[in-house]
Amino acid sequence: MHSPIQQYLDSVHERLFDVHGGEQPKNNPSLAEADPDLCGLAMTTADGYTYTSGDAEVPFSMQSISKVFCYAIALQDRGFRYMDSKIDVEPSGSSFKDLSSEANTGRPKNPLINIGAIAATAQILPDSDGEVFDKILRIMSDCAARQLEVDEISYEADRDGGMHNRALSWFLASWGIIDGDPLPAFDDYSRQCAILTSSKDLSIMASTLTNLGVNPVTGKRVFSRSVAQRVMSVMLTCGMYDDSGDWVSSVGMPAKSGVGGGIISVLPGQLGIATYAPPLDRHGSSVRGLAAHRILSRDLELHFVRTSKAGLSTIRAHETIDHVPSTTRRPESAEAVLAEHGCRAHVLEVMGDLLFSGIEVLSREVATFGSETVCVVVDLSRADHVAEVSIKAISRLATALANVGTALALVDPFDRLDSLLVPVDMRVEIFEDRNDALTWAEDQILIEFGDDSCFPDDSIATPLMFSGLDETIRKKFVSLLKREEYETGEMVRRVGDEFDGIRFIVSGEIHTMTAEDEGGEIIAQLVAGMSFGELALNEVYNQPFDVRAAEPTVVELLSKSAIEKLEKTDPEAAALLWRAIAVEGFIRLGQIMRGVN
Amino acid sequence: MHSPIQQYLDSVHERLFDVHGGEQPKNNPSLAEADPDLCGLAMTTADGYTYTSGDAEVPFSMQSISKVFCYAIALQDRGFRYMDSKIDVEPSGSSFKDLSSEANTGRPKNPLINIGAIAATAQILPDSDGEVFDKILRIMSDCAARQLEVDEISYEADRDGGMHNRALSWFLASWGIIDGDPLPAFDDYSRQCAILTSSKDLSIMASTLTNLGVNPVTGKRVFSRSVAQRVMSVMLTCGMYDDSGDWVSSVGMPAKSGVGGGIISVLPGQLGIATYAPPLDRHGSSVRGLAAHRILSRDLELHFVRTSKAGLSTIRAHETIDHVPSTTRRPESAEAVLAEHGCRAHVLEVMGDLLFSGIEVLSREVATFGSETVCVVVDLSRADHVAEVSIKAISRLATALANVGTALALVDPFDRLDSLLVPVDMRVEIFEDRNDALTWAEDQILIEFGDDSCFPDDSIATPLMFSGLDETIRKKFVSLLKREEYETGEMVRRVGDEFDGIRFIVSGEIHTMTAEDEGGEIIAQLVAGMSFGELALNEVYNQPFDVRAAEPTVVELLSKSAIEKLEKTDPEAAALLWRAIAVEGFIRLGQIMRGVN
Repeated sequence: MHSPIQQYLDSVHERLFDVHGGEQPKNNPSLAEADPDLCGLAMTTADGYTYTSGDAEVPFSMQSISKVFCYAIALQDRGFRYMDSKIDVEPSGSSFKDLSSEANTGRPKNPLINIGAIAATAQILPDSDGEVFDKILRIMSDCAARQLEVDEISYEADRDGGMHNRALSWFLASWGIIDGDPLPAFDDYSRQCAILTSSKDLSIMASTLTNLGVNPVTGKRVFSRSVAQRVMSVMLTCGMYDDSGDWVSSVGMPAKSGVGGGIISVLPGQLGIATYAPPLDRHGSSVRGLAAHRILSRDLELHFVRTSKAGLSTIRAHETIDHVPSTTRRPESAEAVLAEHGCRAHVLEVMGDLLFSGIEVLSREVATFGSETVCVVVDLSRADHVAEVSIKAISRLATALANVGTALALVDPFDRLDSLLVPVDMRVEIFEDRNDALTWAEDQILIEFGDDSCFPDDSIATPLMFSGLDETIRKKFVSLLKREEYETGEMVRRVGDEFDGIRFIVSGEIHTMTAEDEGGEIIAQLVAGMSFGELALNEVYNQPFDVRAAEPTVVELLSKSAIEKLEKTDPEAAALLWRAIAVEGFIRLGQIMRGVN
Repeated sequence: MHSPIQQYLDSVHERLFDVHGGEQPKNNPSLAEADPDLCGLAMTTADGYTYTSGDAEVPFSMQSISKVFCYAIALQDRGFRYMDSKIDVEPSGSSFKDLSSEANTGRPKNPLINIGAIAATAQILPDSDGEVFDKILRIMSDCAARQLEVDEISYEADRDGGMHNRALSWFLASWGIIDGDPLPAFDDYSRQCAILTSSKDLSIMASTLTNLGVNPVTGKRVFSRSVAQRVMSVMLTCGMYDDSGDWVSSVGMPAKSGVGGGIISVLPGQLGIATYAPPLDRHGSSVRGLAAHRILSRDLELHFVRTSKAGLSTIRAHETIDHVPSTTRRPESAEAVLAEHGCRAHVLEVMGDLLFSGIEVLSREVATFGSETVCVVVDLSRADHVAEVSIKAISRLATALANVGTALALVDPFDRLDSLLVPVDMRVEIFEDRNDALTWAEDQILIEFGDDSCFPDDSIATPLMFSGLDETIRKKFVSLLKREEYETGEMVRRVGDEFDGIRFIVSGEIHTMTAEDEGGEIIAQLVAGMSFGELALNEVYNQPFDVRAAEPTVVELLSKSAIEKLEKTDPEAAALLWRAIAVEGFIRLGQIMRGVN
């Protein structure tokens, strides 16, 4: 099947041929002679996949788009405070050729106009070989995920014809923004403008910014998060010269255009977009490129007002543990305690963003719980966008709960919290598995309101399944059992095995898991007293899960042949046995159905 | 428990007392005499909940913050094209008192500087009573969710002392931006600057913008989505006067300050924030207010680069229907077909945003499916942020799939798609319930690869549970059954009922549901051949769900007493019966366990 996104991009490309007008710069032969009908589109996603349409691999000179990356390199080298002393970040409200500097200090208004970009280039520290330009080309190549080259003809034209830029360079020197001879910076600036990139290259370079400094194709970190964030902010207000306000209103993405015919735009965290079409409008931006970005922003709702978190976080479910039990098989005495006191353990499921709004909704709900509350489980399995702010907020929530004597557990199956967790005093349990968290919550209730009988021993003589039977019959069943021992990791049952009996755990731990070729995920953890193997009674699927010993484990097998023998010799006992198995099946089905809902 | 968000806001309020400096305007007695130590914070969420700290209910005059709402009213009255012909949307790069107008036309650079705001006020169409100001006050009151009033002293001071603004007004008249006498517009402008609002009011007004035009407290739509979007865009580039660039870099939220000491900022879709503290910096913005917005943006990660969708959409799970069966009980012949051909029905679960990035990831995965694919189920239960763009993209995906003969079904439990759906030719099934979608997918496979035996009749003589038994014993069991009939809606079993036997559906439909006081959600839909009542075998919980007839339904009851009688008179048959019940229980447990995982 042809990708619908690809089809869409191709349709945008086609629509651009209805867009006409614009002229090409005459003072640079590379630009003047470019085929005016060339038109390329490229989009790179946050995971490094690039869609292209049209002439997306045709190289052209970056021109002013280089300013973005040059500023990023200088910020990375020199830090924010130093760079802010050299170059402001205010929109100039004027065109790219103006002399937009502060009256008193000469500080350029922003780094995306010529005077600011030359000033930024001058701040870049050279590589160990002493060459600033080599470093610029190397880092820009890192952003593009391939080795870039320079269009020497374009470079020479800009160097030899760049009277205005020479003047700006000398002004910068006269104000002390550049120390000493400004011509090396002028030269480096002219050369970086002539770096050859295709729309595809530029979309990957843009995605390195949207991906907060990490090139999503190579995985290499090129800039720090804060540098990428600052650069995109400045692109938003200063990127489109004196069209910035209209651009923000209608397109709403940080962007930068170049007189080479390229335009990039970035959707932070999501997309890098680049276009190429040589004819320019009077502001020096590609006519078809502008149209393409407008169309993409409108069709794909990329405007920052639309893409900002919609604050849709909701408490998807709020239950107490008696209504969403774990799948752990408990003794009857424990079941009774949980039925009575389970309402003291709350289980909340949050859906949506785990940014400020998600935590806010959660905090508001938790604040309504009464003082009888023993513990709270917050299930974040369906929450997204876990950020550092979430950790701080959860820490605040945990502290507030701890102050009123309530324990907090989180369900986070994707390990997102762990990676962000700083070693603060956060009294909160984190579980990968919802069922483990529910088991924990039940344990909290049983510890507070139950007695020893609620907790089965590590080693147990009688299977839970037989606990409701009278002494004589139970002894009879126990006499049929055959002991087996398994070592850690040993496979007890395999997906597809036919029913061979029911196994009861005497001591140790058993894991029920999906088949290895389907991920080997743990589905259930079984301990002493519990049974397994009954699911294979389904003759179409047989044994549906692998079963392994998680530690040295002793089980007792009620074999299929022992059951068949019992059916013949003592049908009354057999009826009681099958009744016990049936009851066990429906107890577990009921548990999981109440839990799932 | 004290809300952690409230505690946090109080801590920010406290930190502000370490921030000093600033002066109050001398030319307006209301502003000059305000207590410099007043300090109020307020935040209103997208669902209309307001947090406040400090002097958040102290009223003060809006001053320039009114420009935001005044521009919104004019846009709403006159449309974008007309307003753009009167006022540009470019940052002025200059202070609020400058004469920032286009050289040729006099068109003000943007609506958030004085000259632009006066021009915007002049465009507002009067209410039927002929009064422009009454309309301004009415709509601003709608934004604040209460009736606002004017500070007459402040108004008179600004009206009588507003020489500069009078000059700007006459300039606008001279250029024809205002038709005829500009003084009524000047007067309306001066009065709106004197409207009294508290931080709390302003946070609700701001949230009316973030909530795309709907006041989240009252639910009233005040502005259209596009007007709210435009206004927030202009606030981002032009809201903070000549500090806009720095503001965008460091705070990254659309905002507006006023010399009354107020500042508002907006996080689209999420939060309206307002602060009040009278002393101003040299740009005319509240010193403590700026500090507060900076702290909140940093701590809560509200910068637009951070809050933009992180593009984390992922395919959480990709299975085929044989691995994630529905809970529908099928005849054995159907089970065999599904085991063989189920790999032709794909089930994808998308987690994260259903904006462009979500659809993009989905499209890319679907494009890899082979031509043998019969149908695709996309489960959107865990996807968020369903927007119009999603619908367009899903429509494209459905069309692309239809072209290769593959059917598409979506699971959307929140009816988000329905409300956005436009009547296009979208060949896609939408299910609220995942299990219904899985049933649909199985049906697609059975239609293509099964025969009649795969589909049970609407009416069935023999319960599925007995289908594996031999003729004699099956007849014996059937002879024990007692017929019952239920009308539509009639309750068959209630939560808490003790086990009274097993019921088999002969014809009709039965719904298993959560108790009415817990929402009465449907858990399972059962049809002819299936059984219910076995879950009550759990003696702690008894019957865990309500059971109702969804239409006129005939069932046959194998009563508890009939079973007990059989156990005494024919234990061999009883053993077979309990075995069949046990097998049924574990078949269903296996089904749900495979489905849940």
